[in-house]
Amino acid sequence: MRLSHSLIPTLKETPAEAQIASHRLMLRAGLVRQTSAGIYAWLPIGHRVLRNIERIVREEQDAAGAQECLMPTIQPAELWRESGRYDDYGKEMLRIRDRHDRELLYGPTNEEMITDLLRGSVRSYRELPQILYHIQWKFRDEVRPRFGVMRGREFLMKDAYSFDLDYAGAVVSYRRMMLAYMRTFQRLGLKAIPMAADSGPIGGDMSHEFIILAPTGESQVYFDAAFEEIDYLAQGAGGFDHANASDLERFFTSMTTHYAATDEKHDPAAWASVPAARRREGRGIEVGHIFYFGTKYSAAMGFAVAGADGKPVHPEMGSYGIGVSRLVGGVIEASHDDAGIIWPDAIAPFRAAILNLKQGDPVCDSLCEALYARLGPAALYDDRAERAGVKFADADLMGHPWQIVVGPRGAATGRVELKRRASGERVELARDDALTRIG
Amino acid sequence: MRLSHSLIPTLKETPAEAQIASHRLMLRAGLVRQTSAGIYAWLPIGHRVLRNIERIVREEQDAAGAQECLMPTIQPAELWRESGRYDDYGKEMLRIRDRHDRELLYGPTNEEMITDLLRGSVRSYRELPQILYHIQWKFRDEVRPRFGVMRGREFLMKDAYSFDLDYAGAVVSYRRMMLAYMRTFQRLGLKAIPMAADSGPIGGDMSHEFIILAPTGESQVYFDAAFEEIDYLAQGAGGFDHANASDLERFFTSMTTHYAATDEKHDPAAWASVPAARRREGRGIEVGHIFYFGTKYSAAMGFAVAGADGKPVHPEMGSYGIGVSRLVGGVIEASHDDAGIIWPDAIAPFRAAILNLKQGDPVCDSLCEALYARLGPAALYDDRAERAGVKFADADLMGHPWQIVVGPRGAATGRVELKRRASGERVELARDDALTRIG
Repeated sequence: MRLSHSLIPTLKETPAEAQIASHRLMLRAGLVRQTSAGIYAWLPIGHRVLRNIERIVREEQDAAGAQECLMPTIQPAELWRESGRYDDYGKEMLRIRDRHDRELLYGPTNEEMITDLLRGSVRSYRELPQILYHIQWKFRDEVRPRFGVMRGREFLMKDAYSFDLDYAGAVVSYRRMMLAYMRTFQRLGLKAIPMAADSGPIGGDMSHEFIILAPTGESQVYFDAAFEEIDYLAQGAGGFDHANASDLERFFTSMTTHYAATDEKHDPAAWASVPAARRREGRGIEVGHIFYFGTKYSAAMGFAVAGADGKPVHPEMGSYGIGVSRLVGGVIEASHDDAGIIWPDAIAPFRAAILNLKQGDPVCDSLCEALYARLGPAALYDDRAERAGVKFADADLMGHPWQIVVGPRGAATGRVELKRRASGERVELARDDALTRIG
Repeated sequence: MRLSHSLIPTLKETPAEAQIASHRLMLRAGLVRQTSAGIYAWLPIGHRVLRNIERIVREEQDAAGAQECLMPTIQPAELWRESGRYDDYGKEMLRIRDRHDRELLYGPTNEEMITDLLRGSVRSYRELPQILYHIQWKFRDEVRPRFGVMRGREFLMKDAYSFDLDYAGAVVSYRRMMLAYMRTFQRLGLKAIPMAADSGPIGGDMSHEFIILAPTGESQVYFDAAFEEIDYLAQGAGGFDHANASDLERFFTSMTTHYAATDEKHDPAAWASVPAARRREGRGIEVGHIFYFGTKYSAAMGFAVAGADGKPVHPEMGSYGIGVSRLVGGVIEASHDDAGIIWPDAIAPFRAAILNLKQGDPVCDSLCEALYARLGPAALYDDRAERAGVKFADADLMGHPWQIVVGPRGAATGRVELKRRASGERVELARDDALTRIG
């Protein structure tokens, strides 16, 4: 993309309303703009990051054997009356009346709707287990939206729902999703810790939150070093075709036996029993939450399948959420410095920025165009008629993993300066060597 | 995907509420289910088609130099008061009040919001032209939603917005988008005709609808054979980097000089002047609409950039819509028979179905598993314990381009029957030859 003709409005000043690093940097780097309180438009580079995160989340859900579908944003009130949650939800639910005065709402979650879809379609125990997921915008009418996309009103969530014939099956689905989550966060370049949690308004018997480590996180976390040492990508994807309940059990045991707690639930006595060398502390941000709640919805909404003996059975359910738009903020909280964002390679909007330090100079322009032609959509070409200092500052702010700096002296001999954003390391080298290094 | 554990609820009976072919087939093949009047959940195979169409639309928008962004579904009423459209829109606009009694609405289109975003960011003529687009759910509170996803209330639309410094630039953007549309429809396997149109509530001076040919289409269309003869993919993508205004002018001239009209605007005298051998008639469905409307929004909303002489200039704008969810229905109207859907290869949910005619037979099962392992996510494996007739009927109904039929006799010698859905052609051949043929 050519920066001169792109909607990437970087800001020099820090917007007064932004209280946390990710909110400040998302506004300053031109990722988002607020359109109403707690509602954001995703500008081109913010949108690219959102889509990159979404892609990784999707790949891991697919690998775990979950089927993607897409439920609408607007739901009928009746469904929520069936489960009894219509009144429970209070003012956080955005309630709507259409032109015929029918009661609708903007979905904050989808347990009712997915249960309704399956009760109309799935009849036999032979069709279970199933896990369905979608990645869709949700709305929670927060009384005081703040912290940018971290606590917005309209937000993008991946929510999955599992249906099993019995408790044993439901436990396998739950563990499968936990593994999918740990793999997802590792691929996003994040350190994540699963923590036993209360299940809140979803209800249910077993629940884990996923906290990612970030120096500016909202809560203090205490955990065993084990969580940092495991390579989750080496654990297999755990899809239906490769399901291995005993592998999943081993994984789940390792996730649930080591100490992990936020300050709310911290237990100093248990903490003292963790060997000192294995104690880790940090700040954390919640980015995912999974629940097992048995037959709460299938029973309330009358969803049963014929069991092997012909008798009706209410499927055992779980639900599994990841805050996709929240993760954009979460990654920035975990990876930034005073100069700006430092994108992990896997989700960077562009792999490299090309900084033309003398726009209009035929030698610089021609070298930059050649680089841009080779890198294609992976590159953002800063072709603005701006001073070098502005281009350096904006590239650091936007956080591209690589910067290719093209100045008149080097360009004369086909050489560029290559900067790695994360380390700050700079090296001068020939154009093609720079392209090779970027990969 | 294994059909036994998938949410693909095919129906034998035709649902009474469905009046048109695509609505009937989308329900029967398990693509969608209605969740409220005119609001649909996209089940796994419907979702796959929707995403495939979205991908092609996106690739052609990107190739045309448009930048993808994502605006929220919920908009503030104030923006629409600025343009004067808040009251104009009437009951089709879904109006909402939040917990603080602020007036919001579910966006039916985004001219106001995109103008607001650019007026806060773009200051100089040097930053123009720009084209922004997003693919987002919209809502129009139709008084009588019908015809399934063809006239639903919550629908997925790609809408693009162009901003140019002057009329000449705006014309180039308009032509560029028209070419992107014709390329898009060709890639979707559709025959499309652009037709001069009224601009309706969007307003403006120039407007074209895009009608695709479908035997069960809503209106009669008359057009010159030229539209069927042009290879739009040979016309170049027309992106900013390869802009060639004279090529675009030639293309636009060919699109606007040949006769094309729906019955509403049909002119028998002009039609008579088309050589008889070049006259084509058919039924058609509107799937896209593009508008040039000058400074209507930029002037009303006070968006100006500094021109080359330093004086403020209101950018010239256009908007460009494709009904992405509507296209799923449109493609089916264009491509089906009595047995079901016939997906064009480019957007089929699966390239092939594997039909195991004797589930549980070790030889059949093992051959099917081998095929499934080779084809991976491109295949739907019908592993249900159902009769052959049910599997044949469901495969025809779902419309996979290829069917690989595995029966006990052939399987014994590693042979399968390969059926091409579009032609009905069947051939028996060795397993690996079938895989090669499918490609």
